[in-house]
Amino acid sequence: MQTIPVGLVGVTGYTGMELARILAVHPSLTLTRATSRAEAGKPLKAIYPFLEGFPAGEVAITAPNAADLAASCRLVFLAVPHGAAMDYTAELLAAGLKVVDLSADFRLLDAGIYAAWYGLDHRHPALLPEAVYGLPELYAERLKTAKLTANPGCYPTSVILALAPALQNGLVATDDIVCDSKSGASGAGRKAVAPMLFCEVHDSFRAYNLGKHRHTPEIEQELSKLGGAAITVSFNPHLLPIDRGILSTIYTKLVAPMSVEDVRQLYARHYADAPWVRVLPVGKLPETRFVRGTMFCDIGLVVDPRTGRLIVVSAIDNLCRGASGQAVACANLMSGLPVNAGLNLAPMMP
Amino acid sequence: MQTIPVGLVGVTGYTGMELARILAVHPSLTLTRATSRAEAGKPLKAIYPFLEGFPAGEVAITAPNAADLAASCRLVFLAVPHGAAMDYTAELLAAGLKVVDLSADFRLLDAGIYAAWYGLDHRHPALLPEAVYGLPELYAERLKTAKLTANPGCYPTSVILALAPALQNGLVATDDIVCDSKSGASGAGRKAVAPMLFCEVHDSFRAYNLGKHRHTPEIEQELSKLGGAAITVSFNPHLLPIDRGILSTIYTKLVAPMSVEDVRQLYARHYADAPWVRVLPVGKLPETRFVRGTMFCDIGLVVDPRTGRLIVVSAIDNLCRGASGQAVACANLMSGLPVNAGLNLAPMMP
Amino acid sequence: MQTIPVGLVGVTGYTGMELARILAVHPSLTLTRATSRAEAGKPLKAIYPFLEGFPAGEVAITAPNAADLAASCRLVFLAVPHGAAMDYTAELLAAGLKVVDLSADFRLLDAGIYAAWYGLDHRHPALLPEAVYGLPELYAERLKTAKLTANPGCYPTSVILALAPALQNGLVATDDIVCDSKSGASGAGRKAVAPMLFCEVHDSFRAYNLGKHRHTPEIEQELSKLGGAAITVSFNPHLLPIDRGILSTIYTKLVAPMSVEDVRQLYARHYADAPWVRVLPVGKLPETRFVRGTMFCDIGLVVDPRTGRLIVVSAIDNLCRGASGQAVACANLMSGLPVNAGLNLAPMMP
Amino acid sequence: MQTIPVGLVGVTGYTGMELARILAVHPSLTLTRATSRAEAGKPLKAIYPFLEGFPAGEVAITAPNAADLAASCRLVFLAVPHGAAMDYTAELLAAGLKVVDLSADFRLLDAGIYAAWYGLDHRHPALLPEAVYGLPELYAERLKTAKLTANPGCYPTSVILALAPALQNGLVATDDIVCDSKSGASGAGRKAVAPMLFCEVHDSFRAYNLGKHRHTPEIEQELSKLGGAAITVSFNPHLLPIDRGILSTIYTKLVAPMSVEDVRQLYARHYADAPWVRVLPVGKLPETRFVRGTMFCDIGLVVDPRTGRLIVVSAIDNLCRGASGQAVACANLMSGLPVNAGLNLAPMMP
Repeated sequence: MQTIPVGLVGVTGYTGMELARILAVHPSLTLTRATSRAEAGKPLKAIYPFLEGFPAGEVAITAPNAADLAASCRLVFLAVPHGAAMDYTAELLAAGLKVVDLSADFRLLDAGIYAAWYGLDHRHPALLPEAVYGLPELYAERLKTAKLTANPGCYPTSVILALAPALQNGLVATDDIVCDSKSGASGAGRKAVAPMLFCEVHDSFRAYNLGKHRHTPEIEQELSKLGGAAITVSFNPHLLPIDRGILSTIYTKLVAPMSVEDVRQLYARHYADAPWVRVLPVGKLPETRFVRGTMFCDIGLVVDPRTGRLIVVSAIDNLCRGASGQAVACANLMSGLPVNAGLNLAPMMP
Repeated sequence: MQTIPVGLVGVTGYTGMELARILAVHPSLTLTRATSRAEAGKPLKAIYPFLEGFPAGEVAITAPNAADLAASCRLVFLAVPHGAAMDYTAELLAAGLKVVDLSADFRLLDAGIYAAWYGLDHRHPALLPEAVYGLPELYAERLKTAKLTANPGCYPTSVILALAPALQNGLVATDDIVCDSKSGASGAGRKAVAPMLFCEVHDSFRAYNLGKHRHTPEIEQELSKLGGAAITVSFNPHLLPIDRGILSTIYTKLVAPMSVEDVRQLYARHYADAPWVRVLPVGKLPETRFVRGTMFCDIGLVVDPRTGRLIVVSAIDNLCRGASGQAVACANLMSGLPVNAGLNLAPMMP
Repeated sequence: MQTIPVGLVGVTGYTGMELARILAVHPSLTLTRATSRAEAGKPLKAIYPFLEGFPAGEVAITAPNAADLAASCRLVFLAVPHGAAMDYTAELLAAGLKVVDLSADFRLLDAGIYAAWYGLDHRHPALLPEAVYGLPELYAERLKTAKLTANPGCYPTSVILALAPALQNGLVATDDIVCDSKSGASGAGRKAVAPMLFCEVHDSFRAYNLGKHRHTPEIEQELSKLGGAAITVSFNPHLLPIDRGILSTIYTKLVAPMSVEDVRQLYARHYADAPWVRVLPVGKLPETRFVRGTMFCDIGLVVDPRTGRLIVVSAIDNLCRGASGQAVACANLMSGLPVNAGLNLAPMMP
Repeated sequence: MQTIPVGLVGVTGYTGMELARILAVHPSLTLTRATSRAEAGKPLKAIYPFLEGFPAGEVAITAPNAADLAASCRLVFLAVPHGAAMDYTAELLAAGLKVVDLSADFRLLDAGIYAAWYGLDHRHPALLPEAVYGLPELYAERLKTAKLTANPGCYPTSVILALAPALQNGLVATDDIVCDSKSGASGAGRKAVAPMLFCEVHDSFRAYNLGKHRHTPEIEQELSKLGGAAITVSFNPHLLPIDRGILSTIYTKLVAPMSVEDVRQLYARHYADAPWVRVLPVGKLPETRFVRGTMFCDIGLVVDPRTGRLIVVSAIDNLCRGASGQAVACANLMSGLPVNAGLNLAPMMP
């Protein structure tokens, strides 16, 4: 069977590692290039010893070069930091490649908002309208013809999927949404910094960047579209002593009393055709382990009649669904493959 | 030096274990009795091997007997489940002992609310007015003469201390408070149940009992007193894969705009004489490790001008500050000792 | 495509869970029956919520019944405790089914040794010669025609694969072998017992059953065959605060000086055709994370000239390679499938 | 009460942090100086937020200066890397200070062995004979008059205490000792390096430096003295996903058959006057949690008649007993205080 050659730019972080894990056993996408200036010349398995024994592990790391990538791939995954990704994107698109950018550089439609939250001027604002936000449940049709996908952030994936049915159906107030999100440590990346050492994270828990996290405008952009109103959210991340997983507990106010059974039915109908969104039975709540290593987004629903609130809890794997797996789903669609090619992954339990 | 003999009823759970840890090195309270029908006859160190080498480890476990306890102790800590504690309390008080009850049996002033949340009729409602709620920052004076202390729940300790200054000073709306609390696994007790096995908790995270946890009425009772209004909170617990620690992220609405510096000053003044409440500098947020094994309650403050919210984050050690250490602080006060006798504990880092 | 229907007897433990995880996405084996008296009538996903969305999750749990299993399956995995498995095995074989028994009941060729170590008389000793020890690297040919596979223990898998090349080639003394093995907590099973609670295992480490673990005779039986001499080993297990993984550090004495490069080459040649045994480069040592969720057995080699020892370090995933994945590999062979059907799994990193 | 002023040189690592934790509540040693070029000018609590509320947290960090230290302290703890410590030591001794050096610089009596294992020439070999090896169970008398203590390594502490009675009494062969040691991650220090990031250590386990760890010569030096023969050990460290704790499993050959009860009695007598060495009852084995945060060294004993081996298992807290707590014990002795002043610490359970 003919497979589609793809490239990976950026191999030193966890999203690159997760892309390699998924592509190593993907039936239709074949990793043919992996780039890193620092590691050029080594086989990929020298960086990722767990890939020993897989053809992907034998791919020789090269210095990034657009012409070479264009000659050897049809699509490239960019797993480099925001700020750096935008120039790569422009260059690779110009070379005729399709691009899935895992950074934040093309997620915000408004370059001014990008500048305000990321402290950087966008150098390729003309490309912003071309980018499709890579959430398959919302944009599958557009992704099929996209040349550039802005792969969603991990927290936004967990929040947007959790609120889409409630907002689209006008169930909840748009001016009183609080997201209390908790993420595993892989979300912080693989850079060697003291606060992410084992002994600084293990057996502890902390909040960070309350009200100020850069995923906030991305969440607000998509929620506003879904709710048909300008939505400001209170988004508040926390660091869990786990490898993978995001659990978001989202507090909303019902505009009118509604039973949890009715809310659940509405959610279940909304996601009836979405293979990865699992709306849990009433009384069940998500756990990050149930989605570990997979594309699932588990959603639990609670109506608290004492306070008139609908509480939505969602769980995803931040690396797979929240980053690299979602990137592969987008690449699948962009390549004419079924969205779930290579992504029919069973959760790792325990 | 003469020390005060104290007893421990209930040795099989984590609160009993934590009491033993603290009492083992307490300069003025001496453990002289520990009771358990199942383990009677063994020395305490047979149950708690870590106590080998401490006099407390040599205490012989006996079957619980009020007369014997009254003859050998001046104060008894009850570390037995709610429902069971109320009869013990009545019996021990009648025998002339002072009692610190770590269960929920005497925390709620209203026996009807107890019945509604705990599904049990209170068998000793006449004792409820005698019980002092054992939060030293609120009730130190009354604790000095108390015969019965209702030791606070772990979650309530973290929430009440976090909100007391804001509510007493009218800073925030009383009808829009959301508590998103996360607790270590020791809070679930030491009963052998499958959902608390290592492989069910480790490397995972989950919410539970959203809007329905039994600590809710206790929180509301105390917050209502502080706020001078009947307060209903949305209280929502989660389970962390850590041994010890609670971190509560509490979302409130400011009634009028206020700078975070001003809020911080007000909190710092409020707790100026409280040795264990540490109001962190602006920009710093609590971490459970910074309070591990201690009586500290660390409080971080964030004002989010985008949403008009004051976010209060508090961290305690659920076993020490949230249970057994607080019980010892109460016992200190009830015994005429300084509140912090034996409790000048440095956090275990890392 | 026609698939082969298989059954699972025993759904409450981690090996049953892991079988379900693997079979949920196996291309050629289809789970059609899962049995449990206690849970009969529920769909499997009620026990394994992570299987929501997979056909395997919809399988209705039934009470175990040989006739029903024979009518609906061709092969059955027994994930029940030793002692219970032997009767099931006899009954299912009699009903014409093939059986992969994950318990210890058919691993030891000598019923007397079984009785001595397990404290049980074997009730079906006549079946012992029929059972094939399910280690594909050693017994692939016999497995292809086996009706009964005795699936190896987790520790033995890690030790036997580590020592086979050294013993078969006479590199090391047969009378001075020490195995220091460390296992993740899933190896202890899913029974609710206090010593396996999260707070008893997390952030701690302990040895247990030194010199007395029941996997010892199984290791000695296979090593003796490989070494051509009666081998007694000092086998010593420890409990790691991780979910999955065994790392065995095995201390041997070289019979003659040999460079680590030569030992490595000998090992590499020995396992040249074994897809799952990865002999690491000199200077590299295994880590349990590199094999997480997979069939890999990673082997690292150290020659210590100061003491004349060859130290072999092996790492496997105790649930996958050490139990359920290996059972599926055996079932593959017994069913005429490639050994690695459904088992081309990439390690979960991180 | 008059207390003794002490200084801390090196505040950025875990041993410095642990010294601060212990000194913060020490009744007789008062931290008056803490030095760091990089952090000079800040109060210590800016580096160690957990010390907020303790006088030690208010100590102003200064640049290291021997004259200033000599003017303000009587004893200095050196928590700097090996290689750097030797010059500080010479300078501080010359200034009249007593020194407890937590590095390896003065542990080896033979400068040639130091050079061979550490790759460094010793610049102050004349000081080597002055240094007392800081293991109170072996050298308490000499420590009382020492000016320079070479604080033992963490692994050596766990191994030497475990083998001292067996070697001094000639129970075991001196030429067949294998130490399989496992350490928590704090032993690797606090330097920001990728292999010690949370996601690289958590939920995994690995061996490292087998047969080559720098603690080997230190172990051999002390064991040789105890055994009265030149002893070469096979010392093999592993990395545990826990914060604190070392468990060493040590395999020896009995020179003559001996019951485990007799071995246990001999050990118990040997350590009858050692307050921190707990020889466990026959049948019990150590766990790192039972010694967490303390000076205890728990020792479990197993005789395996099948292989003629005595297996000794020891557990310590690598940061407290294996580094900073032991340093304080030495400082106590050097200062005329009881060895356990400020070190009567109860284990943190759970």
